[in-house]
Amino acid sequence: MTQTSQRGGGPVRLTAQSATTLRPAIAGEITGGFWADRRRVNRDVSIPAAWNRLHEAGNFHNLELAAGRTTGSYVNDLPFLDSDVYKWLEAVAWAFADPLLSSALADRLRQQLDETERLLRDAQQPDGYLNSHFQVRFPGERFVQLQWGHELYCAGHLIQAAVALHRTTGDPRLLEVAQRVADLVVETFGTEPGKVDGVCGHPEIEAALVELYRETGVTPYLERARYFVDRRGHGLLGDGRFGRHYWQDHVPVRDAPSVEGHAVRQLYLLAGVADVYVETGDANLLEALERLWAEMVASKTYLTGGIGAHHSDEAFGDPYELPNERSYCETCAAISSIMFSWRMLMITGEAKYADLVERTLYNGFLAGISLDGQRYIYANPLQVREGHPVRGDDHDYQRVKWFHCACCPPNVMRTLASLEHYVLLGGDARVALHQYISGRYAADVGSGEVSIEVTTDYPWDGKVRIRISGAPAGRWELAMRVPHWAEQSTLTVNGTAANTAPADGWWVVGREWNDGDDVLLVLPLVPRLTMADPRLDAARGAVAIEYGPLVYCLEAVDNPGHRLDDLTVDTAVTPVVASADGTLEGAATIQTAGHVRPRIGALWWPYTLAGESARDEAGESLALTAVPYYAWGNREPGAMRIWVPTA
Amino acid sequence: MTQTSQRGGGPVRLTAQSATTLRPAIAGEITGGFWADRRRVNRDVSIPAAWNRLHEAGNFHNLELAAGRTTGSYVNDLPFLDSDVYKWLEAVAWAFADPLLSSALADRLRQQLDETERLLRDAQQPDGYLNSHFQVRFPGERFVQLQWGHELYCAGHLIQAAVALHRTTGDPRLLEVAQRVADLVVETFGTEPGKVDGVCGHPEIEAALVELYRETGVTPYLERARYFVDRRGHGLLGDGRFGRHYWQDHVPVRDAPSVEGHAVRQLYLLAGVADVYVETGDANLLEALERLWAEMVASKTYLTGGIGAHHSDEAFGDPYELPNERSYCETCAAISSIMFSWRMLMITGEAKYADLVERTLYNGFLAGISLDGQRYIYANPLQVREGHPVRGDDHDYQRVKWFHCACCPPNVMRTLASLEHYVLLGGDARVALHQYISGRYAADVGSGEVSIEVTTDYPWDGKVRIRISGAPAGRWELAMRVPHWAEQSTLTVNGTAANTAPADGWWVVGREWNDGDDVLLVLPLVPRLTMADPRLDAARGAVAIEYGPLVYCLEAVDNPGHRLDDLTVDTAVTPVVASADGTLEGAATIQTAGHVRPRIGALWWPYTLAGESARDEAGESLALTAVPYYAWGNREPGAMRIWVPTA
Repeated sequence: MTQTSQRGGGPVRLTAQSATTLRPAIAGEITGGFWADRRRVNRDVSIPAAWNRLHEAGNFHNLELAAGRTTGSYVNDLPFLDSDVYKWLEAVAWAFADPLLSSALADRLRQQLDETERLLRDAQQPDGYLNSHFQVRFPGERFVQLQWGHELYCAGHLIQAAVALHRTTGDPRLLEVAQRVADLVVETFGTEPGKVDGVCGHPEIEAALVELYRETGVTPYLERARYFVDRRGHGLLGDGRFGRHYWQDHVPVRDAPSVEGHAVRQLYLLAGVADVYVETGDANLLEALERLWAEMVASKTYLTGGIGAHHSDEAFGDPYELPNERSYCETCAAISSIMFSWRMLMITGEAKYADLVERTLYNGFLAGISLDGQRYIYANPLQVREGHPVRGDDHDYQRVKWFHCACCPPNVMRTLASLEHYVLLGGDARVALHQYISGRYAADVGSGEVSIEVTTDYPWDGKVRIRISGAPAGRWELAMRVPHWAEQSTLTVNGTAANTAPADGWWVVGREWNDGDDVLLVLPLVPRLTMADPRLDAARGAVAIEYGPLVYCLEAVDNPGHRLDDLTVDTAVTPVVASADGTLEGAATIQTAGHVRPRIGALWWPYTLAGESARDEAGESLALTAVPYYAWGNREPGAMRIWVPTA
Repeated sequence: MTQTSQRGGGPVRLTAQSATTLRPAIAGEITGGFWADRRRVNRDVSIPAAWNRLHEAGNFHNLELAAGRTTGSYVNDLPFLDSDVYKWLEAVAWAFADPLLSSALADRLRQQLDETERLLRDAQQPDGYLNSHFQVRFPGERFVQLQWGHELYCAGHLIQAAVALHRTTGDPRLLEVAQRVADLVVETFGTEPGKVDGVCGHPEIEAALVELYRETGVTPYLERARYFVDRRGHGLLGDGRFGRHYWQDHVPVRDAPSVEGHAVRQLYLLAGVADVYVETGDANLLEALERLWAEMVASKTYLTGGIGAHHSDEAFGDPYELPNERSYCETCAAISSIMFSWRMLMITGEAKYADLVERTLYNGFLAGISLDGQRYIYANPLQVREGHPVRGDDHDYQRVKWFHCACCPPNVMRTLASLEHYVLLGGDARVALHQYISGRYAADVGSGEVSIEVTTDYPWDGKVRIRISGAPAGRWELAMRVPHWAEQSTLTVNGTAANTAPADGWWVVGREWNDGDDVLLVLPLVPRLTMADPRLDAARGAVAIEYGPLVYCLEAVDNPGHRLDDLTVDTAVTPVVASADGTLEGAATIQTAGHVRPRIGALWWPYTLAGESARDEAGESLALTAVPYYAWGNREPGAMRIWVPTA
């Protein structure tokens, strides 16, 4: 097994004081199956292409301006272009830990990394300040435009990239740049006289500073992260154009009853709050995190795990305000949800958090990138109507090569490139396998390091084989998550049925394990029809087809000859898996039965007395074909919908 | 009985050649009941106040600028401010026919009318051109900005006002102004060399020119109306910012399969097309009208009769794209639907058209004005969520005193002021009473004039008494509409049950009638629960409470202590009428039973296996109170919804 690096660790590495139930794996390697394919495309296509995209889009040009290496105007009107480079750098950093990275590509990426590192060093000012937008466009306005300037947001992404690189390669150079930025932030902000008492309009610095503290042991980073968490919610940012809720400045997070405002801002903040909780043990923060997660999931989360119901302010809507066609579901928001939930999983050990990570990964997140890794979508709709105009802008309902505001693409890259860290967790006399992805993983159980090998065709097959490849002496528990939709899963250990039953979302087998022990978990994979809480206007009276962790959708291309919106599904019929025809890279298609209603029926008025089924016109019956939502929009453009009405 | 004027006639007066089944009443007077109250407020509050509003808003100032009477800048950036004045003038014209108009107010309105007429005459240019926006702001650009200039739209409203005034008072002065405008239009537009071959971005001139032809007998007006109908749909307007569909210029109306684009534009156009059909007998036009009406009603009309699903382009959406919270349902669009459907009723004699007129009048239209007649709403939502921000702009979900774009208020005024014309129609040996409004009405049955008196407390009571107060000799039929929701209505004639049954939406009693004959129609009024076509995403799995022609809604103020969006309705319980408490001017409130679901339930994930009712948590039961939709938003602002989920 390949250690991801000498230093180990993924996006989160805890300290000895960290208050969590579970701890990140110490090593991981994804070797095959569903996610290995997605990671291959990410590694071999998306990440290398991004170097060109970031040059074409002006991100590097702007940094060259800041470094005084070139002349001309700042490109693009957005202040956070540096962060796209940093997220790409972070993706590159994680890619270095991938044993499947070819040496040729590794050389090329290393060269690009070196170039970028030199550029950032040249651009960085003597006191550590580094932000091309403010250096070029507003040289006198450092840390003044806190509402929209994104300075601390950019700094946070730089820090995360530098930490990632340090963890995977041991390379200290970018970390030095990042620490100089962080030191300036520590020095600049605070309630002490002469300091700037403020927070960034877009959270991100909080989690980054905690991670930098973990990497360096420099406690002022943690203190400043806590400061940014505590000072938010006191109106320091003012109302802005969308109100204080927009940037979570309306109430301190400890007192907030609900997730509000810009979804990415809210969840980047909560990820940072989780990190601050973990390192400080501040119980009020944990209460708030649990409360806000529950509120978000109960009434503000799409079936896909997507979040954000408003296009206008990229925000959570009201409870149950989850429109399908005008869903926002920014890809970055799905990523922020994964970041938040993964931290909650470590803190609490509760399976529901891993369930949401899985759902979001397979659906709301993965739909954000095309199967060929070359096109991205910003807002992920749950429904596209016939003839919906292709607009060609950032918020189009069709994946495009790059965006004016290109926050999502490199965010997808860094997430896929670090995915091996989101599989296994260690704990006290326990490892918890919470995602089923073929690979080799290692985690610490206190008494030593457990190594396992996972082999599975999940999500196409429910069999997950786990081989113990390294086990410390003594008793420890292997916990395997049972997704909330998986009923009647079975578990055998060395060919014998486990003498236990799953509880609270986990199969747990405690014993003295030996190298070569073989565990077979079978999650029953059958297509199912799912309904929503009746308060969810956009899904009421409809069902969605799901299959394991996958949400399915109807696409016009698979259901030709009718308007998709005229179709209803027959809930008395059980959907079946059709053999994959290879069209969508091996994705299973699902077939079921439905009807097509006449456009203009026998009655002129489409509203009838409730319960008058005699007046109802089911229409001609037909077979419906569904494909995984993550794969939608990879063929000819057309209508799509997840929720299908029941007649 | 009071003739509405020496000359008679309402918004439509047919000619001897008109191709219709039914003909407008020749006289009408609303004497009491529901609509008399609304008309009193309109007459005594809204119309007089509009004089001040139109002065404050600059409409008169702009005309004074055009007349060279004052100096300064054109107020407001919209080009159609003159039309607000014209619609108000039309309302004043109809008000003169109302016997309940006090002589003091009549004097004041006559003085304001005289002033306005002199102003228009002064502003009108020697060749007849009259449009303050172009005279003041773009003096060299007559009939050039056809896309957005609204010149012909304004001309159309001037013509309608002038015709109304001529019909109710015989006053020819405004008609002279309007004819000079119309003559210039006739002279300017056409396919002949040297003429402008074009149509107006906003239809309205079509119906107006037909009416002017009917009033004056000048056939070029009819010819030019037909020209505008025929030339539309050939891309003369170009794409504009919303595409050719927006102004119905994507396809000739004869070929259009569906209503599209800006709802008011579409239906003003179709009202005009109906008028052109009536005067030309062009069968292709009638086919198109019937097809488009059916398509609109089947899939693009709200339960309230409201139309228009998009805020962005004020447009019809796709079929079944009828969101509740983001419904547009412009008040003007409801009026345009009434105009279109009333014409279709005359053309075909089919009851469904009158059904839609009634539904729209009582709901989508009437909600556009506050009960006190002092505040208006532009976009009429079917749902307002808790804490929905009050924005204070034109599209706010709260009625306001006046708008920046004040098309709706005077449109409401002219509609209410001419409502007596929308009650009775005449035909060959038949009168058709299609709306149930207390009053005296007269219509021609070929052999002479039939006069009736209608007495009813409808919509609060289903008993409608019709007394024949004038009958020509010989047999003729009294037809009375049976609304589509009214099951088991009864009819007695002079105390004896009618020996017939309703068919095709009408009770028809044919006999030789005598003065004093007494007919009693009883429409069973019981509250009912209504459901929608399952394709209608926003209403599926929910029911609405209806009562007679009225759509009901829940308002937060009547259902305190819970979030309105957490409530479900129990469909096994029959709603009951609660005694009116006088809060909303005598409106009946309706009570039924429901449940309040817990905000965060026992399950963390709000999506469950379809049919797993065991997992469902109905929540605490409670009584729900509903009020008529037209009366919503007349008390403290708060949440509202028409469609209530079933558990």
